[in-house]
Parts: sequence; C-alpha cells; structure tokens
Amino acid sequence: MEFEVFETRERALADNEAAAAQTREALRREGARLVNVMGSPGAGKTSLLVRLIEALKPLRAGVMEADVDSDVDARTIARTGARVIQLHTAGLCHMDADMTRRGLERLGPEGLDVVFLENIGNLVCPAEFEVGADVRLVILSVPEGDDKPLKYPLMFRVADCLAVNKLDALPAFDFDLDALKARVAALRPGAPVFPLSAKTGEGVDALAEWLRARLGGDDA
Amino acid sequence: MEFEVFETRERALADNEAAAAQTREALRREGARLVNVMGSPGAGKTSLLVRLIEALKPLRAGVMEADVDSDVDARTIARTGARVIQLHTAGLCHMDADMTRRGLERLGPEGLDVVFLENIGNLVCPAEFEVGADVRLVILSVPEGDDKPLKYPLMFRVADCLAVNKLDALPAFDFDLDALKARVAALRPGAPVFPLSAKTGEGVDALAEWLRARLGGDDA
Repeated sequence: MEFEVFETRERALADNEAAAAQTREALRREGARLVNVMGSPGAGKTSLLVRLIEALKPLRAGVMEADVDSDVDARTIARTGARVIQLHTAGLCHMDADMTRRGLERLGPEGLDVVFLENIGNLVCPAEFEVGADVRLVILSVPEGDDKPLKYPLMFRVADCLAVNKLDALPAFDFDLDALKARVAALRPGAPVFPLSAKTGEGVDALAEWLRARLGGDDA
Repeated sequence: MEFEVFETRERALADNEAAAAQTREALRREGARLVNVMGSPGAGKTSLLVRLIEALKPLRAGVMEADVDSDVDARTIARTGARVIQLHTAGLCHMDADMTRRGLERLGPEGLDVVFLENIGNLVCPAEFEVGADVRLVILSVPEGDDKPLKYPLMFRVADCLAVNKLDALPAFDFDLDALKARVAALRPGAPVFPLSAKTGEGVDALAEWLRARLGGDDA
C-alpha cells in the first residue's frame, strides 16, 4: 500500500515562514519595522521597552504585549503614551506569524516607525517561530546566569542582538560577562551584546543607537 | 458525509496522564517518590536541588536533569555524590510522561527514596504535562518579579508548593512577597510558599521538612 507521509510539523513551520515574510513586506510598505523581543519570564522585557520607546525618539514606537494572561505589561507601556495592545495566547507558549499579523491589524501600524512585539516569556519555543520581524532582540538578565546559551542554544542562535539586563544587580550574582559573550559568539558570530540596566538606564543608549541604524537600513 | 473529529491534542494529553499514573504506581512499588521541579530558566532549580539533596538526608535522592542541550546541571549534581543522569529533549520545551519513564529506566530508581526531575526551564509548557510526580515543586526567583502568577497562571495552579529563591537578593529588587503570596493563594489555595536562598541556605530546611512529610505520607 502506498501512502503519503505528511510532515505536519515541518509543513507548519514552512507555512509560518511564508506568512512571516508577507507581514514583513506589508510593514515595510507602511514604513514600519517589527522587532521581536524575546527572553525568559522576568528578564525585564517590558522595563527595557519603556526605556527604548524614550531613547528611540523621534522614532515613533508601538508595542504588542503578548502574554498567556493578564494585562499588566500593556498597562505599563500605556503609561509611556505609546500605542499598545495586549494579546492573549490562551495558554500557547509562543507567538507565530499568523497571531502576529492579526495583532498588527488590531494595533494599526499607521504612523509608526517601529513596532515591538514582546513575545511570551520563554527561552525555548518563541525561537522556533518567525513572526515577520526585521530584528530579533533577545534579553537575558544577570540573575539568570551566564550559562543560558549552553542550555537554550537556539534562542541565542537566532538573536540579532543580545541585551544583558539587570547590570545594576551584578555585584549580587556570580555572573561572568566575558564567558557569556564567548558563548554567544560561538552560536551567533558577530551579534552585538549590550550590557545594560533598564532600572537605571545605563547602557540603553548604545542599544538604541544600534537599533536605530539597523531599523533605518535597507538591509535591516 | 459523516466523519470522526479526532481531538489529537486532548487525546495526547489523556494518553500522557495514563502513562504518568503508571509511572507513579511503579515508583511507589519501588518505595520511591518523584518530584517534578519546574521554573523559569535561571530560577535556581539546580542550586536548590544541591541543597535539598543534603537537607533531606538520610533520605536517598536521585536526579534527572532535563535540558534542551548541555550537561552543566548534571555535572553540578554529580559533585554531590547523588545518582544523576542528563536527559536531552532535542529542542522540546517540556518533559512528558513517556520521556520521564524512559529517563527513570536509565537512572534506575532502586535504592532511592526520592527522584527529582528537573524539568526544562520554562513557566508555560511543563505545567501542561503530568510526568507521574507525587509532588510538583515550582521555583520562582526574586529577580523574576512578583507578578509572574498573573502572567503564567497555570504553572502556579498546578504547584503543590512554591519555593521563592534568591531571597538574599531581595534588597536589590522591587519584590512584594505578600503580594506574591496572595496571587499564589488565589490560584492554588493552601499551597505553601517557602522563601529561601539556595545560595546562603536560608529557608531550605523548612522546605525539606515539608517535602519529607509529604513524600513519606500515603496521601503524597
């Protein structure tokens, strides 16, 4: 008997990539770029976005907050005056291209230069799903430890740049920044690493400058 | 045309629960209990296990370290002298009952009183999958923030007890322990919360005492 073997997982990922490419092109026609912000729960994604929204001005930023539940992050972003919506994934552990497209329709990218998607706090699953972003910004925080690239390599392999947050807490933790940089370089050679503190603001400008150049370029 | 709608996801979860129940019974016949240890990347799961292995003596503990990649955690546990194996999930974001059963076969539960499964660092997916554990121990660390039960409710709903780790770092963070306790109580009434520091050892004995009572009882 002959039959077809249908690779559902690979097919789903391929469909997802095609949808992501469409989203990327549609946003570019609007003059906007998408940044996929990923990291563990509590890495400080929202706090860093609050800083970046300010540091990137006069670029106009909007935010899509994705969470399994709650709207605390969207409330935090709303206080900056930026356009924001809260997306609920109903238990799902990552955002995919179709959910992102529908989120963008609700947010409305008109008049925005950059849209940040704050993905679900998770170092595993979001790394597998393209959402149509021009830049993948991964945030790791000092208290999580410098060994995370060893344990969650895919996330660091897809990172266009890495923010190392909670630098202010460095004295309280056994964290080797050079060791981390070497581990990141092994997975994603050339990706810049920005040590910073969303709490104090230290180091945020360097990341903002890199993002501004990257978002403005045609090769972004 | 009539056809069957096959709920693959629900069926998979039901199959998983049946497999988990078998594992639980098999371990009990061996006189051993299984603890499913869950939490974010960098919450301090391995460091706390190093403390618990010591604090639970004369109970004999073994450990299964699950990671997407690397063996750093298994090496850390091996230094305690406890029986340990490293499991690699090949990209998967959680352990399920079948992977756990196969891990237990490799570890060998003979002569052990308690086996800890350190799950993948992830506050979303592992909460959905029973592995056959008698106790689900969730670890949240102070730097992650007190709002995590709002964003990842299922993990706190399934927690039999919660360890709040990195208490030594409390002065460096804006963390409201009472607010956290109220949020946990709303999701899982009666689940004990143990503030502790795997770094200094503070508070570990209280958790060990609770675990010892729980693992020894027939209702565990």
